[in-house]
Amino acid sequence: MSRISMQQLIDFGLSYFMARGFSETAARAIADAGVSAQAFGITTHGLNQWLYIRGGIAAQTIDPGAEPEILREQGAIVHLTGPRVPGQTMMKQALDMVVPKARANGIAMAAIKKSHWIGAVGPYLIPVAEQGLLAQAWAQNSACADCAPIGGIEATFSTNPLALAVPTGGTPMIADFSTATVAMGKVNALIKAGRKADSPIFRDADGNLTDDPAVVCDGGSILFTGGSDYGHKGYAMSLWCEALTAMAGGDCNNPDLPQSQSINLTVIDPDAFTGRERYLTEFQRLTTRIKNVRRLPGVDTIRLPGERGFACLAESQKAGVPIDDSLRESLDAMADEADVQRL
Amino acid sequence: MSRISMQQLIDFGLSYFMARGFSETAARAIADAGVSAQAFGITTHGLNQWLYIRGGIAAQTIDPGAEPEILREQGAIVHLTGPRVPGQTMMKQALDMVVPKARANGIAMAAIKKSHWIGAVGPYLIPVAEQGLLAQAWAQNSACADCAPIGGIEATFSTNPLALAVPTGGTPMIADFSTATVAMGKVNALIKAGRKADSPIFRDADGNLTDDPAVVCDGGSILFTGGSDYGHKGYAMSLWCEALTAMAGGDCNNPDLPQSQSINLTVIDPDAFTGRERYLTEFQRLTTRIKNVRRLPGVDTIRLPGERGFACLAESQKAGVPIDDSLRESLDAMADEADVQRL
Repeated sequence: MSRISMQQLIDFGLSYFMARGFSETAARAIADAGVSAQAFGITTHGLNQWLYIRGGIAAQTIDPGAEPEILREQGAIVHLTGPRVPGQTMMKQALDMVVPKARANGIAMAAIKKSHWIGAVGPYLIPVAEQGLLAQAWAQNSACADCAPIGGIEATFSTNPLALAVPTGGTPMIADFSTATVAMGKVNALIKAGRKADSPIFRDADGNLTDDPAVVCDGGSILFTGGSDYGHKGYAMSLWCEALTAMAGGDCNNPDLPQSQSINLTVIDPDAFTGRERYLTEFQRLTTRIKNVRRLPGVDTIRLPGERGFACLAESQKAGVPIDDSLRESLDAMADEADVQRL
Repeated sequence: MSRISMQQLIDFGLSYFMARGFSETAARAIADAGVSAQAFGITTHGLNQWLYIRGGIAAQTIDPGAEPEILREQGAIVHLTGPRVPGQTMMKQALDMVVPKARANGIAMAAIKKSHWIGAVGPYLIPVAEQGLLAQAWAQNSACADCAPIGGIEATFSTNPLALAVPTGGTPMIADFSTATVAMGKVNALIKAGRKADSPIFRDADGNLTDDPAVVCDGGSILFTGGSDYGHKGYAMSLWCEALTAMAGGDCNNPDLPQSQSINLTVIDPDAFTGRERYLTEFQRLTTRIKNVRRLPGVDTIRLPGERGFACLAESQKAGVPIDDSLRESLDAMADEADVQRL
C-alpha cells in the first residue's frame, strides 16, 4: 500500500483521460469523482471507476467524444441522457444544472437515463451540502440480479442505493447505502475473505435463508434492507428507485438488455422555506443533543452518517490517498498505454 | 365488531366535526382522512384520528375555527403552518397546492411545520398516484422518544415514517413504513397481547438487545430499520426527516416542547420527463416480471406495497368498514356529546 496526494491523483486522472480523447471538462469530472470517492474511504466505488471507463473505451461502450444530451430543461427539472458518456460526466452536468434550479425554485430534480456507472453516489453530494443545500439521490442498475421481491426467490433487482446529504454548518451529513442489506461489494469482499455474514442475509436458489455469500452468485439473492422480517421496506425503496428509472425513460431491471444506470437527484434549498440560519440552528441543536446521549459499551463517540468518510478524507488530504498494490499496478498500466507519466 | 359503510362513516364525521365548529371543508378533510385510513386496514392510524382531534379540542390545542396559514408559495414550493389546525386539514391544503405546482414545474414540495397528528401518511397519497403522479412523504414527530442514535442508548428520535406512492396503471403502489424497525402501534400491540417480537429489535435502558417490547416504555428504545447490524440506514433516514423538519422551521426532536408534527411532501410528474405512457409501459413490464418469479413455499402471490391495503379497501367498499366495539362506543359518545345522530 502506498499513499499518493489527492492533487497528484487528480492531475494523473486528468492527463490520462485527456490523452484518451476526453475534453478537459469531462476528464476533470472523471478524475474528481474517482479521487473524491477513494479519499472518502470508498474503495469499492473509488478509483476503480477509472478502470471501468478504461474498459468501456476498450469495449466501445464509452466514446470519449460523446457529450451529455439535454432531453429537457423546464421548470424545476432537468432530463438528461448519454448512452456512451461516462457517468461521472453525466453527474457533473446534472449537478451544474440542478443546483441553480433548486435555488431558483426551492426544489429541483435531475433525472438521468441510460448512463454508465457513476461509482459511489454520496461523494457527488458533498459540494451540494457544503453550499447549504439538501440532496437526495437514487441510483439504479438495470441488469444486476441481486435481490428478489418479497415472497419470491428469483433476483430481479439490483442493490439500488440511496444517498442523502444534509448541511450541518460543519462537515455535512452524507449517507450512502444500499436498499439491499449489503451491496455487492460487501458480498464479493466476504467471498474473497472466505467469510460468512454475521447473520442470515441471503437466500439460496431454493429460497433458504443463509449467511453464506456464495449463494448470491449461484441463483440466490441478498435480502432487502430490513432482512427476513422487515425487508418490505428495502423492497419498497428499490421499487421507488425503479419507478424513478421508468420515469426517466431508462430500463427497469432487465437482464436481457445491456447494463445501464439511471440516476435521480433532488436538491432542496432551505432558504425557500424557513431560511438557512433557522434551519442550521435547529438541526445543530438536535445533533448536539444526539452526540451527548449515553453510549453503548465500547462506543467512543456518536457519529453522524459520513463522519468516518470525512475522517478518511482529512487523512487523505494530510497524508495522501491510500492505494493498494494491485490498484497501483493498474494505474501504472494506464500511464504506459496512454503515454502519460506514471504516478 | 360491526361493519359500517364508508359513506355513512364520512357523513357521520362531516356532521360531527361541523357540529363542533369546523368549516365544511375542514370537516370533510378530517372525515375523509380517518375513513380512508381505516378502510385501508390501518386501525392504529385510522378513525382514532377523530378521537385525537376531539381530545385536542378539549385540551384547546386544536381550534375548530383556525385555518392553515400559507407562509410562502413560490416557484415549486409551498410552506405551511397551522399550530391549532388538525393535521388532516393541513394535508388537504398542502395537497391541493402542491399537485398543480408539480404539474407546472415537473416537481414540487410542500413543507408543513407545527402541525397536529396527520394519522397514517400513505392513504393521503393514493389520489395523487391515481392522478398519475409519484409522491414521497416524510412525517416527523417532535416529542416522542422511541429510537436511539447508532451507538447510543437514550432515545432521541420518533419512529418518523416515510411513504412512497407510485402510479402503476392499475391500483397504485403505496408504501408506508417507519424508519424504526417497528412503529409504536406495533410495540403497543405486542405489549397488550403479552407477546415478544420475533427477533431482538429493542434495547433496554442499559443498552442490551432484547425482544421484549416493554423496555421501550421503560427507558429503552426501538432499533432503527436495519436492526443491530444495519440500523445506520434507518438512522440516516430519520436524520433526513429531522433535517426536513428543521428546514420547515419545525421542532426537531425535543421532549421539552409540546408535541408537533412536521410533514414534507414531494410530488413528481412523469410527463415532465419521459411521459406517462412510456413510464407506465416500462414500470408495468417490471411489475409483471416480478409477479411471475418463483415463490417461496407457502407464498400465494407476489405483492406490490399496498396490495393488502387495497384488498381491505375493496372489502370495505363492498361490505363496510370494520369497526371494533370499543371504537363504536367512542363514536357513539361523540354523537351524543355533539347532538348528532349515532351511526
